[in-house]
Amino acid sequence: MKNTPHPFPPFQLELPQWVTEFLKSQPVAFPTPEARMTLVTTLSQHNIEEGTGGPFGAGVFRVDTHQLVAPGVNLVLSSQNSLAHAEIVAIIMAQQLLGSHDLGAAGLPSHELVTSCEPCAMCLGAICWSGVSHLVCGAQGNDAEAIGFDEGPKLKDWASALEQRGITVTKNIGRFQATQVLQKYVEQGGKVYNSRQGSKEPPR
Amino acid sequence: MKNTPHPFPPFQLELPQWVTEFLKSQPVAFPTPEARMTLVTTLSQHNIEEGTGGPFGAGVFRVDTHQLVAPGVNLVLSSQNSLAHAEIVAIIMAQQLLGSHDLGAAGLPSHELVTSCEPCAMCLGAICWSGVSHLVCGAQGNDAEAIGFDEGPKLKDWASALEQRGITVTKNIGRFQATQVLQKYVEQGGKVYNSRQGSKEPPR
Repeated sequence: MKNTPHPFPPFQLELPQWVTEFLKSQPVAFPTPEARMTLVTTLSQHNIEEGTGGPFGAGVFRVDTHQLVAPGVNLVLSSQNSLAHAEIVAIIMAQQLLGSHDLGAAGLPSHELVTSCEPCAMCLGAICWSGVSHLVCGAQGNDAEAIGFDEGPKLKDWASALEQRGITVTKNIGRFQATQVLQKYVEQGGKVYNSRQGSKEPPR
Repeated sequence: MKNTPHPFPPFQLELPQWVTEFLKSQPVAFPTPEARMTLVTTLSQHNIEEGTGGPFGAGVFRVDTHQLVAPGVNLVLSSQNSLAHAEIVAIIMAQQLLGSHDLGAAGLPSHELVTSCEPCAMCLGAICWSGVSHLVCGAQGNDAEAIGFDEGPKLKDWASALEQRGITVTKNIGRFQATQVLQKYVEQGGKVYNSRQGSKEPPR
């Protein structure tokens, strides 16, 4: 006799195969914030070239060795999941690889999240719960809004709110480069997806 | 010859089996906000009794028929994923079942998210991107904070921010019942998990 089938099948989130291939060409460690940003911005660019998602990339790095722990790219459309922002994907992958819901847990090295664009309202909250101790941002929220993406209901002084929680924030690393990918996405007719009703602006 | 193994295995999120078993005893539709809240609060209670997560439950419902589309319970510890709040789990499952990143997409009925406790900063942002058009809350953020959980960096007037985006908000439905589950979690020694460094308060 069979068990009753589970009416809610497991949700699976997978990085595109090109991410693995691309990382083979990359160094083991990324010693400067600029080098780490170049990596995640390049991920964001490949993501739109490969057609696997929106123009956003991220990565969780070890603070001590500057090694990449887990990359992330925006997978909202391909995973049919509005929450699959690049930062979320990187955090999920890093936590899974380390076997902990807390990237700041005792016994683990400190971790840094590097993102090609400042976090939206959701990712801001997610960063607080992730256990990372540093955040490095490329493009500004304004840059994403300029092409139609939305930051959501976020505290104006969001960086201070993170700092108060012990998460340091560095902005505008490689901003020009990261913003160019946003522009390119628009030029190639990329979809600024909208998951909201009754609103004039699309979310990110 | 084998392919290079993927260094980032897929992440899988699955509802506990007891959720399926429990739902068999439930009606098909939940015509009142109170009935929908009772369902998600009961899920939160079972979640702590079964030891599968924190004291939070949620559900995505069709607005027209009041049918449950997808349930959610907090799975942070069991899934080793700090993002697996009840609201997030319900949204992920609903989007997967409907095959859309947008629960408000053309051709779909309107959807409501019912949650046993007001959303934290992350879930607030996630609600904006989910496509739901209504939010119903049980316990207040204060009630969760009273037992040590943290709401995160959230706009004080978060409900107005949702309303401005076309998402209506109803608070304090079954608040007493939902808060009792929070209390029970503390009494039974439930872990108020902390994923943050350098902070005095634990996150939710």
